[in-house]
Amino acid sequence: MRQSLLFTKTLKNISADSQSRNQQFLVRGGFVQQVMAGVYAFLPLGYRVIRKIETIVREEMSAVFGQEVFLPALHPKNNWVATGRWDTFDAVFKLKSRQMDIEYALAPSHEEVVVPLAKQYIHSYKDLPFAVYQIQTKFRDELRAKSGLLRGREFIMKDLYSFHATPDDLARYYEEVSRAYVKIFFRMGLKSLLVEASGGTFSKKSHEFQIAASAGEDTIYYCSACSLGRNEEVVTEADKHLCLVCGKKTVVLKTSEVGNIFKLNTKFSDPFGLKYEDKEGVSHMVYMGCYGIGISRLMGVIAEVFNDDRGLIWPSAVAPYRVHLLSLNQEKEEVAKRAVSLYDMLVQNGVEVLFDDRDRRAGEKFAESDLLGIPLRAVVSEKSGDKVEVKERKSMDARLLSLENFLAATLSCASPQKP
Amino acid sequence: MRQSLLFTKTLKNISADSQSRNQQFLVRGGFVQQVMAGVYAFLPLGYRVIRKIETIVREEMSAVFGQEVFLPALHPKNNWVATGRWDTFDAVFKLKSRQMDIEYALAPSHEEVVVPLAKQYIHSYKDLPFAVYQIQTKFRDELRAKSGLLRGREFIMKDLYSFHATPDDLARYYEEVSRAYVKIFFRMGLKSLLVEASGGTFSKKSHEFQIAASAGEDTIYYCSACSLGRNEEVVTEADKHLCLVCGKKTVVLKTSEVGNIFKLNTKFSDPFGLKYEDKEGVSHMVYMGCYGIGISRLMGVIAEVFNDDRGLIWPSAVAPYRVHLLSLNQEKEEVAKRAVSLYDMLVQNGVEVLFDDRDRRAGEKFAESDLLGIPLRAVVSEKSGDKVEVKERKSMDARLLSLENFLAATLSCASPQKP
Repeated sequence: MRQSLLFTKTLKNISADSQSRNQQFLVRGGFVQQVMAGVYAFLPLGYRVIRKIETIVREEMSAVFGQEVFLPALHPKNNWVATGRWDTFDAVFKLKSRQMDIEYALAPSHEEVVVPLAKQYIHSYKDLPFAVYQIQTKFRDELRAKSGLLRGREFIMKDLYSFHATPDDLARYYEEVSRAYVKIFFRMGLKSLLVEASGGTFSKKSHEFQIAASAGEDTIYYCSACSLGRNEEVVTEADKHLCLVCGKKTVVLKTSEVGNIFKLNTKFSDPFGLKYEDKEGVSHMVYMGCYGIGISRLMGVIAEVFNDDRGLIWPSAVAPYRVHLLSLNQEKEEVAKRAVSLYDMLVQNGVEVLFDDRDRRAGEKFAESDLLGIPLRAVVSEKSGDKVEVKERKSMDARLLSLENFLAATLSCASPQKP
Repeated sequence: MRQSLLFTKTLKNISADSQSRNQQFLVRGGFVQQVMAGVYAFLPLGYRVIRKIETIVREEMSAVFGQEVFLPALHPKNNWVATGRWDTFDAVFKLKSRQMDIEYALAPSHEEVVVPLAKQYIHSYKDLPFAVYQIQTKFRDELRAKSGLLRGREFIMKDLYSFHATPDDLARYYEEVSRAYVKIFFRMGLKSLLVEASGGTFSKKSHEFQIAASAGEDTIYYCSACSLGRNEEVVTEADKHLCLVCGKKTVVLKTSEVGNIFKLNTKFSDPFGLKYEDKEGVSHMVYMGCYGIGISRLMGVIAEVFNDDRGLIWPSAVAPYRVHLLSLNQEKEEVAKRAVSLYDMLVQNGVEVLFDDRDRRAGEKFAESDLLGIPLRAVVSEKSGDKVEVKERKSMDARLLSLENFLAATLSCASPQKP
């Protein structure tokens, strides 16, 4: 992508109500724009990050045999009345059709639709287990939308639902998804911490995947020996400083939640009569689990964790581009030509490049590049001669490479995704 | 994908309110499920079709320099009041936050958000032209939801918005997008007809892309000589049977709309004061176009057009899988083994295969395969020996091929997309 064609620009100043670091850098870099409190537009650079996160999540959901579906956001009121959550889930947006007999919930979660859907296909034990997932927009009427992408009224979420004949089979799959979650976050450069938490309107208790972040909205009490923590919402003043498993001292951490998993058991099967027949023809309730990852929140957390004073430092796996190519001294025809030929060469080889081909001062280009945080920076200038000066955004170590060596080095770790 | 793991099953009977052919086959095949009137869930096979359609649309939007964004569905009421459409766009869903001072429109279209967004980045003539697009869920409170996916209350849409300094530049880009649209539909096997229509709440008039379909909801008067039609909504009793361009006789056709394009001119720039400065520093309004394609509707139209009495016949470019592999006589270990090894070989070579590995009668497998409509059917049975019997769903011509020749033939037209 030629930066001269990109319709967004980096912003020098943003409004004072952007307290969180992730929001400041994401808005200033033109990754997102706030439309109103808790509601964001994803701009070209930001949506590329979202799509990379989605690709990783899809791959790992597929690896645990998740089947991808796409469920509606408009839900019949009756389904929410059936589970009792029409009245108990405070954050449900409710709306009426102009045909006044029709009322909808604007889905904050999808149990109320996925259970009746699954019921149409579950008859016998032979139909179990299976799992379906989707990546979709969720709506929640949060009282306080805050911290940029971390708590919004509208957000992108991956939700997976699993269906089982027995509690044991649910437990087995719960562990499997738990391992898949660790892998998903690890692929994005994040070390996730497993934490016990309450279950809200979903279940008695749940597990959260938390990322240590000084601006995180959660507080956890964590035992490194057991690799297990507890969210402050489930601790008591008496027990919070000791691990309930091994008795060792816990550490207190500020964290941001990126995923949560719930054993629903038969809580949502019951109201819809979701049953199956065993080998003997005896009827049983279906056991369910549900497993969420906040896709847009994850982008905010990654931005919150990976940055320095100058801007963002995207992990390679989710960076909007692999290479930020800067052309300096563009007034010199020969230099400009070399930059264009390197750009063409990279694109033809499937490397994702953002090409700063604009007429700007070197200092301005460097500062913007620091803010955007693309992993590799390649500078073509009068000084670089027939070579290219390559820096990693992370370490800022500079190397002078021939075009061929740069291409070889870049290709060896290029993403297989199309530019 | 092993069909034994697919959670959906084909249905024998569906409710009588499914009058349209596309809905009947899509619901019976397990591609979609109706959640309520005008609201559908996309199931694994159906969502694969949606994603293929999206990929083609993305490629062609990128070819006309569209930059992908993802805009929110919750819009501030004020923006809709500013354009006057809070009161004039009947089908807008309106909802309130539990914080009673906040009211939202649930977006049926995105001019009200994309214009203020663009305003932040447009200052000078140098910032123009550009175009942004998104693929996103739209909500419209239609009085009568009907014809399956063809008119829903919630649907997937691609919307592109372009920004220009002059009406001439808008006209140039309008033609460019028009050609891109013809190409998009052509790649899906559809011959689109260009039709003049009214502009609704968007503009004085518009152009629609219509597909001839006996169950179509539109009536057009079409001149083959000029390759141009008029929607019945813009003809008069006196002029409808004659082409207004060449004077020849028009034909009357029943059609389904798959795309529409509008010259918005300054209709939405005006209320938001979207201006730019020319070379002399003089301020002018920005000219805009908007361009829609109904992604989920397109899936319905394709299903409506490509079928026979036995079921669907997907065009290759949007088929959920390239090959439907049927294993018969599974009780014979040798036959079952050969089917599995062919399946593994195809998957390893990146061919998208649905593998019917279930213990079912041959007749049942054939009937289901007819219904699902995957382009190539490969049958491994006792009869086929060490070869594979290959049929095209379209022509039903059968050939007996060696595994190697089948793989070679399949690979030569395999989709590059991952299975």
